[in-house]
Amino acid sequence: MELLGLVAQLEHVAFARLAADSALAPTIEQRLELSRFASAAVERRDRVLARITEIGGDPVAAVRQYDDVLDDFDARTQPGSWWERLLKAYVGYGVADDFCRLAAEGLDAGSRAVVLEVLDDASHAELAVAELDAAGSADGVLTARLALWGRRLVGEALGVVQRLLVQRPALVRLVSVGSASQDSAPPNAPAKLFGELTAQHTRRMSRLGLTA
Amino acid sequence: MELLGLVAQLEHVAFARLAADSALAPTIEQRLELSRFASAAVERRDRVLARITEIGGDPVAAVRQYDDVLDDFDARTQPGSWWERLLKAYVGYGVADDFCRLAAEGLDAGSRAVVLEVLDDASHAELAVAELDAAGSADGVLTARLALWGRRLVGEALGVVQRLLVQRPALVRLVSVGSASQDSAPPNAPAKLFGELTAQHTRRMSRLGLTA
Repeated sequence: MELLGLVAQLEHVAFARLAADSALAPTIEQRLELSRFASAAVERRDRVLARITEIGGDPVAAVRQYDDVLDDFDARTQPGSWWERLLKAYVGYGVADDFCRLAAEGLDAGSRAVVLEVLDDASHAELAVAELDAAGSADGVLTARLALWGRRLVGEALGVVQRLLVQRPALVRLVSVGSASQDSAPPNAPAKLFGELTAQHTRRMSRLGLTA
Repeated sequence: MELLGLVAQLEHVAFARLAADSALAPTIEQRLELSRFASAAVERRDRVLARITEIGGDPVAAVRQYDDVLDDFDARTQPGSWWERLLKAYVGYGVADDFCRLAAEGLDAGSRAVVLEVLDDASHAELAVAELDAAGSADGVLTARLALWGRRLVGEALGVVQRLLVQRPALVRLVSVGSASQDSAPPNAPAKLFGELTAQHTRRMSRLGLTA
């Protein structure tokens, strides 16, 4: 229930941000496309909420407990340009999705299937990659700035994960179960988790030709 | 094509505003519900865009020509509270939908069907009515203020329609065709149109117990 609430909240935040991105996007084509992504996030969130109801939980209460989960992150990472916004979504979601995917390993099979299915939509990431790649390849200064921005973003994002694990023992348990199921070494789950999150981030940045 | 572009643009604006409303709504339940309405507006807009493509038009160009259709309206009617926001959407959409519905009478049957179907979704209006009614019935000062706000909103909204008719002769033709098809009197379409829009507005306000 903890993780389902978190995933639902993250999808709701994704909706809100994609809608704001749509309002700010430079072209009509982007505005239309981003509004479709926002709409898809609502649909994904509602699939998770339906699962919460299915297993006897209260969807509103599940979401409410994570109401301010990204407030600090957002306050510390105000994007200064359209490209910084795009990269923020790409990096921020990347870390959040990877975390939820790893923690989902500890869930019951039905809930795990819902979470993994919901996290499987990479259409926004593809838009971000295509646009950032096109913009950056022509502009060395922008590339350097975005690389720096990406490092700030990932630092703050990992900070959010760290605070979550301190505040929510249930999430630590899920991560440990997931970690233990993959190999039989004594679980040092959080360290493994951060290693994995960082590795995925590096992979994501290199797709953009940026140094992580 | 003119009218389809306008309807698509209005649905897109509806998406943007409902998404912003969702971010500002006082309760999580309202935030969830408004995000669903925003998502439904995207779906409706895309149905209209699909029709534009179907009849050989360019959806992006059709939307672009109405890019700033509500800018003046929005600048002149900044809501000062959650209730004023709700009433603005209820009154603003009411007038816009009624106008498009009347102009749709002049369209080919296929496009008319799409427009009427798209405009048939009253779920946001029902939320607004329920909330405004609940809030207003307990508070005479609020009721008086909202009645005043409603009069300002409808004045500005009719102003938008008037400017549209001056700038877009194609819309005047649609309205005239629609008007002529309903009775055989010599068409004084714009006057009839404003009479009809005002009558519908009065009906909407009285659903809230407000004097129009």
